[in-house]
Amino acid sequence: MLVGDIMNVGVIGATGYAGQQLVWLLNNHKRVNISFLASHSYSDNLYSSVYKNYKGFIQNNCINIQQVYENLSSLDIAFIALPHGKSMDITKDLVSKGIRVIDLSADFRLNSPEVYKKWYGLEHGGKELLQESIYGLPELNRDSIKNGQLIANPGCYPTASILALAPLLKNNLIDIDTIIIDAKSGVSGAGRSLNTNTLFCECNESVKAYGIGNHRHTPEIEQELSDLINGNISLLFTPHLIPMNRGILATCYNKLAQRCSVEALEEIYKDFYSHNYFVRVLEYIPETKWVKGSNFCDIGIVLDNKTNRVIVIAAIDNLIKGAAGQAIQNMNIMLGFDEWEGLNFPGMIP
Amino acid sequence: MLVGDIMNVGVIGATGYAGQQLVWLLNNHKRVNISFLASHSYSDNLYSSVYKNYKGFIQNNCINIQQVYENLSSLDIAFIALPHGKSMDITKDLVSKGIRVIDLSADFRLNSPEVYKKWYGLEHGGKELLQESIYGLPELNRDSIKNGQLIANPGCYPTASILALAPLLKNNLIDIDTIIIDAKSGVSGAGRSLNTNTLFCECNESVKAYGIGNHRHTPEIEQELSDLINGNISLLFTPHLIPMNRGILATCYNKLAQRCSVEALEEIYKDFYSHNYFVRVLEYIPETKWVKGSNFCDIGIVLDNKTNRVIVIAAIDNLIKGAAGQAIQNMNIMLGFDEWEGLNFPGMIP
Amino acid sequence: MLVGDIMNVGVIGATGYAGQQLVWLLNNHKRVNISFLASHSYSDNLYSSVYKNYKGFIQNNCINIQQVYENLSSLDIAFIALPHGKSMDITKDLVSKGIRVIDLSADFRLNSPEVYKKWYGLEHGGKELLQESIYGLPELNRDSIKNGQLIANPGCYPTASILALAPLLKNNLIDIDTIIIDAKSGVSGAGRSLNTNTLFCECNESVKAYGIGNHRHTPEIEQELSDLINGNISLLFTPHLIPMNRGILATCYNKLAQRCSVEALEEIYKDFYSHNYFVRVLEYIPETKWVKGSNFCDIGIVLDNKTNRVIVIAAIDNLIKGAAGQAIQNMNIMLGFDEWEGLNFPGMIP
Amino acid sequence: MLVGDIMNVGVIGATGYAGQQLVWLLNNHKRVNISFLASHSYSDNLYSSVYKNYKGFIQNNCINIQQVYENLSSLDIAFIALPHGKSMDITKDLVSKGIRVIDLSADFRLNSPEVYKKWYGLEHGGKELLQESIYGLPELNRDSIKNGQLIANPGCYPTASILALAPLLKNNLIDIDTIIIDAKSGVSGAGRSLNTNTLFCECNESVKAYGIGNHRHTPEIEQELSDLINGNISLLFTPHLIPMNRGILATCYNKLAQRCSVEALEEIYKDFYSHNYFVRVLEYIPETKWVKGSNFCDIGIVLDNKTNRVIVIAAIDNLIKGAAGQAIQNMNIMLGFDEWEGLNFPGMIP
Repeated sequence: MLVGDIMNVGVIGATGYAGQQLVWLLNNHKRVNISFLASHSYSDNLYSSVYKNYKGFIQNNCINIQQVYENLSSLDIAFIALPHGKSMDITKDLVSKGIRVIDLSADFRLNSPEVYKKWYGLEHGGKELLQESIYGLPELNRDSIKNGQLIANPGCYPTASILALAPLLKNNLIDIDTIIIDAKSGVSGAGRSLNTNTLFCECNESVKAYGIGNHRHTPEIEQELSDLINGNISLLFTPHLIPMNRGILATCYNKLAQRCSVEALEEIYKDFYSHNYFVRVLEYIPETKWVKGSNFCDIGIVLDNKTNRVIVIAAIDNLIKGAAGQAIQNMNIMLGFDEWEGLNFPGMIP
Repeated sequence: MLVGDIMNVGVIGATGYAGQQLVWLLNNHKRVNISFLASHSYSDNLYSSVYKNYKGFIQNNCINIQQVYENLSSLDIAFIALPHGKSMDITKDLVSKGIRVIDLSADFRLNSPEVYKKWYGLEHGGKELLQESIYGLPELNRDSIKNGQLIANPGCYPTASILALAPLLKNNLIDIDTIIIDAKSGVSGAGRSLNTNTLFCECNESVKAYGIGNHRHTPEIEQELSDLINGNISLLFTPHLIPMNRGILATCYNKLAQRCSVEALEEIYKDFYSHNYFVRVLEYIPETKWVKGSNFCDIGIVLDNKTNRVIVIAAIDNLIKGAAGQAIQNMNIMLGFDEWEGLNFPGMIP
Repeated sequence: MLVGDIMNVGVIGATGYAGQQLVWLLNNHKRVNISFLASHSYSDNLYSSVYKNYKGFIQNNCINIQQVYENLSSLDIAFIALPHGKSMDITKDLVSKGIRVIDLSADFRLNSPEVYKKWYGLEHGGKELLQESIYGLPELNRDSIKNGQLIANPGCYPTASILALAPLLKNNLIDIDTIIIDAKSGVSGAGRSLNTNTLFCECNESVKAYGIGNHRHTPEIEQELSDLINGNISLLFTPHLIPMNRGILATCYNKLAQRCSVEALEEIYKDFYSHNYFVRVLEYIPETKWVKGSNFCDIGIVLDNKTNRVIVIAAIDNLIKGAAGQAIQNMNIMLGFDEWEGLNFPGMIP
Repeated sequence: MLVGDIMNVGVIGATGYAGQQLVWLLNNHKRVNISFLASHSYSDNLYSSVYKNYKGFIQNNCINIQQVYENLSSLDIAFIALPHGKSMDITKDLVSKGIRVIDLSADFRLNSPEVYKKWYGLEHGGKELLQESIYGLPELNRDSIKNGQLIANPGCYPTASILALAPLLKNNLIDIDTIIIDAKSGVSGAGRSLNTNTLFCECNESVKAYGIGNHRHTPEIEQELSDLINGNISLLFTPHLIPMNRGILATCYNKLAQRCSVEALEEIYKDFYSHNYFVRVLEYIPETKWVKGSNFCDIGIVLDNKTNRVIVIAAIDNLIKGAAGQAIQNMNIMLGFDEWEGLNFPGMIP
């Protein structure tokens, strides 16, 4: 690859919310060309008739999954933004053909097919790839991602949660049996498929917890944090649905293993993320609006001396750092681009 | 008092959000007459010019605080819905004149003037009343409320939090050092005074934590739960601001002191609240929309065996069960009405 | 009927948004008993499992449409809150059995089966009833409603539009060729059936016009206004979708036929609606929030001398005065109750 | 100027919503350097402490207006995003010093000081510049903007309204006495200053009309449309406030002067805007979400043959095409950049 070369990428599952965000970012990226946009639901439709913001930008029709196979020559990266369970077969196929894949679904995030089956209720159709796939969180796995063939792009909740907790765990600062993650997400995290629960009038003006203790992102968070300390983390993860389009706030509670000042903790976090452009360690409490529309993860740390707890709060845009932006970040690493290429803009408010 | 008698009540601070909700409920109540509506900001204005929903219902002008004193004869109850610090003097005055007062501010909730000073930063001007005032949570203090002279109406977060945790504590079911309350509130909880933080564009499409570990409702929750067990509870309370008008969801995390089934816990809760119409113990997870516009507190219980934690979730309408509705409930008890008089309707959705 | 008698009513289509609002109001109404709640989608389910706000209030299961027929004895009124096209057959049946029906669908609003077919695309299955059915707008048709057998409850947009325009037309104040109605509705008006367009993320943070010039409420508005003047009104109606749960604001533009002061117009409106409790003629511009949760229609009038236009703005809660509240108002008239029985409360804000 | 030169710009009034959006766009623009950010309210504060999305992007403190004068050397363009009335003096000063100014306030939009005084209630302090200033709507005035010294950046409502109506008027297609503009705006249009009316709980879940017939954007729209036809347009403009952050939808009603097909009208519009990248003429009805976060103006046309009216609907992002984006577009034209430099991205949804 020469500097300045344009790479060819394709998106499978381009009409879901994560797929669409990917298209937005790819369209904006100076170094890539979109070879195709594939969609189960909208094949043969103009992409810009589904998402009318692209009128004048994207002239392509969506293709179907079969047509993907006719468009693989000279493809550098395939992004897969299908629901879990729908990704495994096509990913296996593409990988076997030598295509590098960034999979935004959950299908290749868990190392163990048994754990996958337990939490997703499905027999895994690509077990042999589970050990090979790289968990695509650049802040922890940058080097492996560089030469990865199959990148399992992290879930939105795990991205915020793992980034919030990794420095504490890596530095043995907390009692690992005490971790509680109370996370709040905008509605786009639930996707664009039809469901009474995500109708406007059902979500607006209400907040609820769901999947307490049994949300599928739990084993993903536990796996990555356990790997980090070569230990065995068991934690409690509680997601909540908030009436807004975008954003995740993860409020993480931990018992300190030793007394520590907040300044010292901030220093530890800043060190830990010193070469990680997209993590901003703050001296104040984050809000999702400051990262909305950006690839940043903002992290704030609070000590409660009364109860000897450290509370770490992480804010991301679930569709960007929690999905499509992170996928681009992974692509940049894989293709040798600057990691922030096409992602280097602040959140847009209000 | 004879059955059927109409009681006279006045509202001081009638133009804040809690005051307005109180007016809505009093207007709807068959057994009371509103003697006056007092307001610092809008005295001499038609109440229905400030809150135009009352056009045709309320013809009164707002009076000022001085005029309140000319309207005390034959007053049965005075409601005070002023900000903390503004209530103590007038409350003391009214109580000294023999008026029964329900104070919605925080001024008479804490027993200790030192604790008040520490958390509110003010010298308390009515210390002698702190021991006399009754914490107006009917589910715990119904009998004292009945003959109370000064009722300190609970805060919104404390109402949800205490109702969620009381049965666990009273039955010694949890390790009391492990309590974490992660609460989410709609914006009306912040009141109607001008503040950049509560402008539409600042709150909408965002979520944030605030006052972590130092929110003023913390000592109130700790005091009441400590009293309940004659012990000393120290807990972590973290409120969050959610882009919606009304509602509080309190997600309460606790380590179980002993193994226990969720069915057994539900039974314990149902027993505990068996004579409490406004607490509904659910077999599912509550959402704020189901209590919006009502005086109910919905409580759901989840066990996470993996981490041996019990998670109790309580949902209320912050302006009703968290403020004005509870004040009416207290009034009903004080005046010998049915506790649900004027409050007996379900939430209004969507 | 004796004063104090309790009447029996049933709701067919009780699990849509309008049906649910009807249940809320009926539950609150002192003079009626709910005989049954019927639902296509949720028959055999506890009503309070679909709408959990009713926990503790309603113990009934939903019945299916077949079971309705086993529950007709001693039924005083049947409410039908089914989608258009689904109501005509059952309405015909019930009417033929002597049941008085209030139909919230559009099926019996238009007098002409040809017009119905043109706008709704369906052959009408109950043509013979079209001339008999009464258009249930009490402010215009109170006397006919009193003894009506079949009441066609008005659409939400027509309620606001007709109430806004009737006094102008009745008094020959405007050039009837110049009427434009630009209406804005909350999302609950679109109902609770699954549709990508009403998902939270599709509606939130956006506004759009739809059905310009061809929305099905157009002929309904034209028919009623034409009847009012024994003329032939042709107007332009443009609805818009607004990111909120409830409320309709209809901004109605008209060329004045003669110069007139705003005070004179307000007087004319006040006269016109002098015996109509639920219409409030204002001296200011209405907002939907002041009628949210109530049965009121607020009307404001503005003159633009520069262009010789009178702009009339009407605000209603689309689910109450625009649907279920108006149905109750009709029921009260039919059963000889006070017209405001069960509806006599102001809007709830915020 | 050489190709590739970086130009220096400053922003006065950088902490309002329009100013902030300008900063976002300038920060993203490859050809400019931000020399200073000035703010009355936040001088001496880190810009990124006011708008925390800029953490890591902008290290500058806000300067005060006095300090602006010390930073004028080598300044190529000054943007002024102050409230009306506050801009005139500093603009006059800067222009007199030879600085090219793009003023986002209303102060230099109206040609006549009398009209300014009538609508804004202020004596104009820079009358002599009113004839010189260029109305900065590139689609109509591109050539004058190129060499302009003082650009009056259009208001948000006028941008949408004028773009919607210009082709009809220029082609004599409508009866000019019949124009009605019914516009709907998100809350950011009201700015960031403290006002009870823009508190979250006051705007959320409500819609209202305001300033009917007397909104200050009326003379601005009339002036520009009148200029376009060398005539005298008098129209009715009615703005509404919608519970969303961003976006304006202008629904424009006009009587056709002659029969015309919708296809012919679309052709006329496409011709009219053929060299105008940021206007997209659609074959469908626009929604604000498709332009949110972009500089596009989407226009849709509907004919209502029944009433012989043409309805033109325009959608913009009020902070971008309606303010800061248009200012950048003007800057690009003034500095000889590609007009879309720094603006060439589609809207971001959801």
